[in-house]
Formats: sequence, C-alpha cells, structure tokens
Amino acid sequence: MSDKVGVIGLGSMGLGVAQSLMRAGFDVAGHDVSPDRQEQFVAAGGRTSSSPAHAATGARAVIIMVENAAQTDSVLFGEAGAAVAMQPESVIISCATMAPDDAQRFEQRAAELDIHYLDAPVSGGSNKARNGQLTAISSGSAEAYAVARPVLESFTTRIYELGETAGPGSAFKMVNQLLAGVHMAAACEAITFAARLGLDLNRVYEVIKASAGNSWMFEERVPRILAGDYTPRSPVDNFAKELGVVTALGQREKMPLVLATSALQMFVGAAAAGMGPNDAAAVALLLAKIAKVDLQGRDA
Amino acid sequence: MSDKVGVIGLGSMGLGVAQSLMRAGFDVAGHDVSPDRQEQFVAAGGRTSSSPAHAATGARAVIIMVENAAQTDSVLFGEAGAAVAMQPESVIISCATMAPDDAQRFEQRAAELDIHYLDAPVSGGSNKARNGQLTAISSGSAEAYAVARPVLESFTTRIYELGETAGPGSAFKMVNQLLAGVHMAAACEAITFAARLGLDLNRVYEVIKASAGNSWMFEERVPRILAGDYTPRSPVDNFAKELGVVTALGQREKMPLVLATSALQMFVGAAAAGMGPNDAAAVALLLAKIAKVDLQGRDA
Repeated sequence: MSDKVGVIGLGSMGLGVAQSLMRAGFDVAGHDVSPDRQEQFVAAGGRTSSSPAHAATGARAVIIMVENAAQTDSVLFGEAGAAVAMQPESVIISCATMAPDDAQRFEQRAAELDIHYLDAPVSGGSNKARNGQLTAISSGSAEAYAVARPVLESFTTRIYELGETAGPGSAFKMVNQLLAGVHMAAACEAITFAARLGLDLNRVYEVIKASAGNSWMFEERVPRILAGDYTPRSPVDNFAKELGVVTALGQREKMPLVLATSALQMFVGAAAAGMGPNDAAAVALLLAKIAKVDLQGRDA
Repeated sequence: MSDKVGVIGLGSMGLGVAQSLMRAGFDVAGHDVSPDRQEQFVAAGGRTSSSPAHAATGARAVIIMVENAAQTDSVLFGEAGAAVAMQPESVIISCATMAPDDAQRFEQRAAELDIHYLDAPVSGGSNKARNGQLTAISSGSAEAYAVARPVLESFTTRIYELGETAGPGSAFKMVNQLLAGVHMAAACEAITFAARLGLDLNRVYEVIKASAGNSWMFEERVPRILAGDYTPRSPVDNFAKELGVVTALGQREKMPLVLATSALQMFVGAAAAGMGPNDAAAVALLLAKIAKVDLQGRDA
C-alpha cells in the first residue's frame, strides 16, 4: 500500500502530527484552509496540497485534525473534500473531538465509498504531537485498524482500542474532556483562592500535590501558572470548544452536567476577556485580575 | 508533662484518633454530646468524661474533633467548656475545618488563658484516623508544636507546618477541600455520563486513570462506585459542610468560587435525597437515578 498520508488541518496539533509522520518516513501531503498555516508547514519542510481532495488522492490514510464535527464533515464530504478522492480500502483517521453519533454517521458515509474510518480522537498537546507521543482514544473495525496502525503508531505512544465501530472512541474522549476541563478550571479557581487568602503558593502546590485535592491537571499546570507561563499547550478556545461539545451532548442525551457547564462558562469568560489563544490556565489570570491578586513572585 | 489527652468529639474521626492515642500509650479521656457516641467509645475500650471541662482537666493536650467553628467555640469556651479547665502551657489541637479568622480568634482567646493553640485540620478518612495515618495541615507557634508534637505524631504520618500562628493551617485546608469536593463531584458526574453513553465503565476507569482527566478522587472513589460500595469514608454531609465553609469564606473574601459553589449544590442535592450519611460518592447514585442508568455490573 502507498506510503502517502494526507493531513487535513495544520494547526499546532496537525502540524505536529505531520512532522511525526515525516520523521517516520511517510510521504505527507498537508492541507489547511489558512494560507498562513500552509506556509508554516512548508517552512517546516512539508509539502502542501491545494485541497483536501488533492491531499487525499492516492493516500493510504487521511488524518483529519480539524476543530469539530462540522469541519470534519466539510473537509471530508464538502466541495473538493477528501472522501471522494480516496482509494478503496484506504482509511480516514478522524481526530477531532465530536459526539459519538457524528462519528458513526461519518463511518457510514465512508463505508458507502468503500473507505475505512477510524474514530480516533487524541489526547496530549502540541508538544506531544510533534514528538510522536500522543494517546489515541479510538474505536473502529479490524480492517480500519489494519490499514491505520502503522500511521497511527508514528504519532502515538499509546493506542486505546475501545470498540469495533466508530462511536466509543469519541464517547470515551468526551468523558476525559469533561474531567480535564473541570479539573483545569478547578485548579485555576483553587490557586487564585489560595492567593486571595495570602498563602505561599509554592507551598500550596507542594501540599495539594500530596493530598486528596490533587489532579493530573493541577499537578501539570499550576507550576506554569506560578511561573507566569501561559504559552498555549491547549488554549482557552480549545477547552471552551470541547466542553461545548460535551455539554451539548449531555443536553441531547438528557444528562445534567452541572460542573461541565460551570467550567465551560469560565473558559467562555476567559475567551471574552481576550484570552482565547492563551493556554487554558489563563483562566487563573482572569480570576486573579477579578480578585486583584498576584499569582507570581509570592515566594521571594 | 501529663500523659492525659482529652478528645472532644467522638464521631468516626474522633473515635479513630482516640484509638490511635490509646495505642500510643496516652491516657485518653473522651467526650461527645451524643450518649450513643460515648457508649461506642466505651465499647472500644475508652474512658469517657461528663463534659469537655472534665476531659480537659489535667490534660497535656485537648484535641477538638467536632464539625465546625461554632461547635469548636462551644466545646472550648461554652458552658463546661474545655479551655477554662486546662492547665497553663497545655495545648489545644483544633482539627475542625473552619475559616482562618475563626482559628486566629480561638488562638487569641486561648492565649489569654496561657494555653497554646495549634490550628491543625487533618486530611484522610476514619480508617486513617484509626490507623494513626492522618495528615495534619497545621500552623501555630513553636511552643504549641513543642507540646503537641508527641500527641500529633501518634495519629498522623505527615505533619505540614505552614506558619507560626493559627490561620494558615485552616486556609491550606480550605484550598484542599475546594479541590477534593469539586473533584469528587466531577468524578460522579463523569462516570454517570459515561454510563449514559453506554460505555464499559471498567474500561473508562482504566483509560481516565492514565489520562489528563485523572484526579486523586477519581482514582480512589470510582472503583468503589463501580462496586456499589457507598460505605461512608467521608459522607455527603461532610462534603456539603466543608464546601459550605469554603464558599462562605469565598463570599466574605470577595472571591468568586464558581465550581466550588456548583459542587456544593450537588452534595446538597444528594443530602436532600436522603443520602447525607452515605459516602460522598453517592452523588453518582443520585445522578444515576436521574439519568436512569446502572453504575454496576456493566462488565458482565
């Protein structure tokens, strides 16, 4: 089978994945609607295509690394979309966070074209994408995995296989995003509260990390907050988008999601304050402005 | 100095602490307003006193393991309270979760009676209390620590010393309780959402535990939820009480606490549904009833 892989969507995640694929020896064709992102990819040594269809022609696999279900639909099945250009038995590796029923719908439409579909949202930020260290939270048919596996393995270190059709991969990802989003917002709320109470924040980090209040997010992001580092690993806009998908699904499934909804509002607030492109930990910066406290240099 | 230690408040935490103290060789006098709890302590081999004052007479240290600042005030400074009966240079070890300014006020009143005061909320449930494995999140004067240390060490395995006056101990505890409460409620929300989406919950546990959505609470409590075990380690009522103290302090300090407030409402809801004495993970049970899903036996 061909060594060509199409990568549609060249934001920080797609760019990183494309770089990992090139390092693994794949013949990568990238596409993004943004000319800036196309140029960035060329500057990184990549080859761009004029459309999703062009990037997909003759490819073994096409990785879709766009923002949501609507964009996935558009780049796969819209004008100059990838799907119609793909060869039979090739595979779509769909990485955007979306509701499980969207993933199932795309799998079905792909099947009508004799194309495999892997429901494969990923976890890990752009650094891990670039270093080939993402985690895939995936599901799909054995045939889809057979074609996708060598491609998938070149940008992941762990692949969860969670079901034999599209749907479960996306559903597991929803659950993870709910928790990651709530914990990120909670870390921001707690560290700002600690500052408001006048505590030594480095000490707070040390105590909480060893206590019942710890979370992966708290442990990972609070040191960056205390260093004033809001370089986007996963930006406010991204958390808002993903919690938006989660809460919309909750509403459709008639499942009340009190904390996810509250956390979403905090990210929306930070985006409203102009912090959308900053790392999600910037929610702490917004709370610190509101509470008039300083999150840095408290341990002088 | 005397080997007598008074323990005021013989709920599951106070009872456990008293047992650890007896094992360490202290002469323990316990007191609780509830005759049932007094009897339970006698059944466990303990000696009870008719009042806080009686338990405190001649003691080196008096441990206050009641619910909140109001009860602490009452057993220390109310009718037949411990403080007036204590000898000079003895120490109050105050373990209830309370606002830092309450702790400071108690320290000051103790000082007027020449008694030391240690602001020493603890972390860990009743099992850890009984096994002498609590963590103390404490602050106080060097003199207070000097008298308290041998006593404190007999029911803790870790003692954080976070400042030279009362206040910081309680403030650090607030921050931990905020996170522990939000994470507990989030774990319940997420696992019920996963059930609503029809996922294999044992698989969800495995994936989340290794992902960005993990927290100490998720890792610790979800296995119990999946086993249907709601034996109270730390009950719904306790989480509601502690998040109530946290959010009241937030309001007084003019610090918005969106997630803590939302999580509090979930525990209040579970208490309203009659689950107050159950383990806090029972919030998942309430959500499961609302969403009409089963949290057990999904992996048959």
